[in-house]
Amino acid sequence: MFHDVRMRGFKERADVAEVQAWIDALAIATRTTSVGLDASHGRVLAEDLVSAVDVPSFARSAMDGWAVCSDDTLGASDTDPVLVKVIGTTLPGRPHEGEVHGGQAVRIMTGAPLPRGADAVLRAEDGEQREDELQVRATVPRGRHVGERGEDVKAGTPLLRAGRRLRPQDVGLASSVGCAQLTVHAQPVIEVIVTGDELLPAGSQPEGANITDANAPMLRALIARDGGRVETVAMLPDSEAVLRAALEESAADVVILTGGSSVGEEDHAPRLLHELGTLSFHGVAMRPAAPTGMGTIDERAVFLLPGNPVSCLSAYDFFAGRLVRRMAGRSPEWPYRSQHGRLTRKIASVLGRVDYVRVAVDGDAITPIMTRGASILSSTTESDGFVVVERDSEGHPEGTEVTAYLYDL
Amino acid sequence: MFHDVRMRGFKERADVAEVQAWIDALAIATRTTSVGLDASHGRVLAEDLVSAVDVPSFARSAMDGWAVCSDDTLGASDTDPVLVKVIGTTLPGRPHEGEVHGGQAVRIMTGAPLPRGADAVLRAEDGEQREDELQVRATVPRGRHVGERGEDVKAGTPLLRAGRRLRPQDVGLASSVGCAQLTVHAQPVIEVIVTGDELLPAGSQPEGANITDANAPMLRALIARDGGRVETVAMLPDSEAVLRAALEESAADVVILTGGSSVGEEDHAPRLLHELGTLSFHGVAMRPAAPTGMGTIDERAVFLLPGNPVSCLSAYDFFAGRLVRRMAGRSPEWPYRSQHGRLTRKIASVLGRVDYVRVAVDGDAITPIMTRGASILSSTTESDGFVVVERDSEGHPEGTEVTAYLYDL
Repeated sequence: MFHDVRMRGFKERADVAEVQAWIDALAIATRTTSVGLDASHGRVLAEDLVSAVDVPSFARSAMDGWAVCSDDTLGASDTDPVLVKVIGTTLPGRPHEGEVHGGQAVRIMTGAPLPRGADAVLRAEDGEQREDELQVRATVPRGRHVGERGEDVKAGTPLLRAGRRLRPQDVGLASSVGCAQLTVHAQPVIEVIVTGDELLPAGSQPEGANITDANAPMLRALIARDGGRVETVAMLPDSEAVLRAALEESAADVVILTGGSSVGEEDHAPRLLHELGTLSFHGVAMRPAAPTGMGTIDERAVFLLPGNPVSCLSAYDFFAGRLVRRMAGRSPEWPYRSQHGRLTRKIASVLGRVDYVRVAVDGDAITPIMTRGASILSSTTESDGFVVVERDSEGHPEGTEVTAYLYDL
Repeated sequence: MFHDVRMRGFKERADVAEVQAWIDALAIATRTTSVGLDASHGRVLAEDLVSAVDVPSFARSAMDGWAVCSDDTLGASDTDPVLVKVIGTTLPGRPHEGEVHGGQAVRIMTGAPLPRGADAVLRAEDGEQREDELQVRATVPRGRHVGERGEDVKAGTPLLRAGRRLRPQDVGLASSVGCAQLTVHAQPVIEVIVTGDELLPAGSQPEGANITDANAPMLRALIARDGGRVETVAMLPDSEAVLRAALEESAADVVILTGGSSVGEEDHAPRLLHELGTLSFHGVAMRPAAPTGMGTIDERAVFLLPGNPVSCLSAYDFFAGRLVRRMAGRSPEWPYRSQHGRLTRKIASVLGRVDYVRVAVDGDAITPIMTRGASILSSTTESDGFVVVERDSEGHPEGTEVTAYLYDL
């Protein structure tokens, strides 16, 4: 049964953990896509990358110097050099084609293929060449400074596993095995709907009874950070008909709507979501962001975030972002670094409610910012991060060791 | 005097710290650029952002309910309600234009301007309206649930300081003060030059005596991560004339060249840099990446990185990346998260040399990966990060507490 909260208030609020469990259990489309190497950094592999080739496909020198027969160098030293004859040069990409026999050597550069017959490399520092005569001044055992075929990668080896978020060196490795395209998780497509007759679009000068929207540009940045792609940002009036059409017609994977989710007369979104699909939650036991709601319309997840920008940020990070990250193939957990420290002031909370407390972090000292309210976005730009007070806690006295999550990535 | 190291080896090697100090002292062009809000996330502010406006520019309600005169509500409670008359509605963006007198109230939604005459808001939960008659069931003091003009931002306030790397909420805040464009540090323009006759371009199948380049795609990702922009990637043969032309004609802020920097015959880059500008360092006391060189040509910084991909990664992170990050307005320090732990195996090093040791990290346990060599890029994809052994250390015994830098951001 639908409980219309408008002008009445919430009957009961869901637990944060319960809502997160619902998000984690949502059946999501696991779309994959193929991207070129240059677009692959930071994306998440959707299948194992297995090399089809040996890298390198030949034995090569690990140093600049001379390719030699190791037996020739036995006993050679600075004071007792051995003489051999240099019969050619092998360069990277330009191999010496002949064979090397005892008493012979070939100049070799790092990365060059070892000529047939040679089995070790004498470093440049350990020899001196005059004309075609080389003084060998060190003993090199068989295989010294030689990288065998496949020493970096052997054909058939799984190099990177599905689920891996690609690092710069992963991209380099994929290139080295001849892989030009990688199969990665597709970016979930997000539609952002901003409602509120008082709102002017981002970039406008605020004036009169109007304020300029902060949520759409903030959500755009959050969603991009989490691996999603914002396809459309719609700014809609507080009209039930307009909002209904937008929710029905969206082609996005996830709709994130801000404003119009609470108990006000113009808050149509929860009832519309109930009518068009399922309103799974409305009202969460947290502060700020208590009026958050969510559900599904067909295969589409719909998040109703409060219009107050601090609540919007908090509700995005707790809920919507969790799904975006998961659909992008990433860990659903916060992307924030965490840091331990001690509270310089107590935090008061209420049993049964999760609190999102903005804090200043200075070394080991964690100081709650006097919050002033969920509409004060500057409270999140003045703070370094946040501390979460769990539902089973009434808060923490001064001096408690807590974990702060840092906004600065 | 120029010491030609080709086929001779390095006479002496510079200290890592000395080279880093040189990079930090390089005079760099501090170009700024203006970007729209949607492109500003992650960029670094080049000047303070000061608000020209109050946000909001009116007193507003923090709750849904009724705007009331607080004096009317004195003593009101659930069991002893007070009756007042509702004379209108004020909505966000659609204010009630009349004045509120004693005994009157106006329905109000969160974010709506408080009508003249009213001085407090009664929450929806604390009143019950039938027709135009409101039962006030709680006492609300003056100012309750009212956000004053400028409560979020006061005109003239510096909101964000120059040097700030913009977070999602910063972008939102900038929007809310009517700022459509932000002045940020320009991305340094980087040219990547890959040399090596054995190399095939990224995306090619390796074959014969050739290997496929790993460095250009890896450097592209590293440079993008650090806030730089790769304008061109040139793949050049081991030809002195071609390389000379490329170095002379580059229009980039920074040239990063890989390969051709060591003591091999075909390693022209150091002498060319000496001829065309200044070769400030060639040879660094570190492992891997000892053959790293760098200098300047006119205003341009030029880094000569070893062609071995592990050395290239290490030298980029120690040196070139430091400059890229600094030019982008960021901290020159590594962007990696660090983690403390204990070595499960000893690390051997040599006094006077910095070692970059790839490690596996499992909770508190840090295990050095048997390295095999600087050409083994898979050693950096198999490891979770690295440990640095400083120059004054001969290594660390098993059990030593060390700091690991994690590749996974």
